Amino acid sequence: MKNCIIASTSTLPGGEYLEYLLPELSLHFQDCKKILFIPFSRPSGITHEEYTAKVALAFAKINKTVQGLHEYENPEEAIQKAEGIFTGGGNTFLLVTQLYKNKIMDVLAETVKAGTPYLGTSAGSNICGLTMQTTNDMPIVYPPSFQTLGLIPFNLNAHYLDPDDQSKHMGETRETRIKEFHAFNSLPVLGLREGSWLDVKGEKITLKGNLQARLFRQNQEAKELESGSDLSDLK
Amino acid sequence: MKNCIIASTSTLPGGEYLEYLLPELSLHFQDCKKILFIPFSRPSGITHEEYTAKVALAFAKINKTVQGLHEYENPEEAIQKAEGIFTGGGNTFLLVTQLYKNKIMDVLAETVKAGTPYLGTSAGSNICGLTMQTTNDMPIVYPPSFQTLGLIPFNLNAHYLDPDDQSKHMGETRETRIKEFHAFNSLPVLGLREGSWLDVKGEKITLKGNLQARLFRQNQEAKELESGSDLSDLK
Repeated sequence: MKNCIIASTSTLPGGEYLEYLLPELSLHFQDCKKILFIPFSRPSGITHEEYTAKVALAFAKINKTVQGLHEYENPEEAIQKAEGIFTGGGNTFLLVTQLYKNKIMDVLAETVKAGTPYLGTSAGSNICGLTMQTTNDMPIVYPPSFQTLGLIPFNLNAHYLDPDDQSKHMGETRETRIKEFHAFNSLPVLGLREGSWLDVKGEKITLKGNLQARLFRQNQEAKELESGSDLSDLK
Repeated sequence: MKNCIIASTSTLPGGEYLEYLLPELSLHFQDCKKILFIPFSRPSGITHEEYTAKVALAFAKINKTVQGLHEYENPEEAIQKAEGIFTGGGNTFLLVTQLYKNKIMDVLAETVKAGTPYLGTSAGSNICGLTMQTTNDMPIVYPPSFQTLGLIPFNLNAHYLDPDDQSKHMGETRETRIKEFHAFNSLPVLGLREGSWLDVKGEKITLKGNLQARLFRQNQEAKELESGSDLSDLK
């Protein structure tokens, strides 16, 4: 039975890394002593080692140890044997490229679908959708495919940002970008604001956190969803 | 001899489409009666026809007619025979995908290098760099390659946006994204603010408009460049 927390962001303004999620994570990973961390998305280009150390510091607060996937000779086996898995944020293009390069996209999907507790934040959440095509990230590397884990039957936009009425910037708003996606793709896209997450238990998908999320469907008006909404039938 | 205007944006706040550039364009396209418009990037998913009509309206003010590339049976020949070419903004992934699909990326580069006057705005400017890897756009379609026209020997970030100190949003700033690019790529990246453009005459590249531009180089501090700066040696 799938058991995932899929969060918009790792960090809230003024908070420490993962701090706002720690009470949830303590429950989510209650049967795990050690978390396997996938550091591939390297935010700001930090090394796998630095990133893993940062994550270990956060998980130490709930008495978990952390090991980076880059430390294993056989990443496929590391995933299959993991007690719990966390994929951190950073650049989604880089993350997806590395998952394909290490030939672990499929085994990661299968392992999480079989019930290994999973946490994603930001890029690590984007990959839980059917494709990475609603990421906000810059295409710094060329992935062999935009297909991702498909743990949920729709796409996510992490760090969803409302239009700023005061802004004089002429670049596209997030909503415009998602509309452009829907000119070519029919998948629903859920805009997850920072502080929201999806709780996935088997086929049940619930919106959590204090905020509303914004749902975009092809040829329909965007819609606000309340925290607690059941998204199990969204596809 | 190359003859290009490569602009960050088509439109300034409160202005009409292309309005701020019309005096320049009047000179730039002085020997052209008809402009070939490449509408492939489809901002907000508008049709090729709608987009071409919008562009025709703007160019009518300087007594030019406009024809969309989508109207031609043979797009390669249309490019080769064009008096002047304009590629408009929208989604860079879509634009690049369509240029490859229509097999015109190379002929467009050759034609512009041979001297056909070219205007790019936004996505139409991003493709003037060596790769599209510093676009801000969403990967709504999967292009066969990220390589672009290479009219200039570096990359651009159009609609360059300074960090907002007041923002509580935790998504990456533009500067952070470009730093992530430089963790894997050595090309310089020029952040062109809205209202700036590059004027390319042969091998001479000059920064124009009222604003500074922000230059990012691998392993170096970002640097502000004054309007009028000569970028001919940047690579």
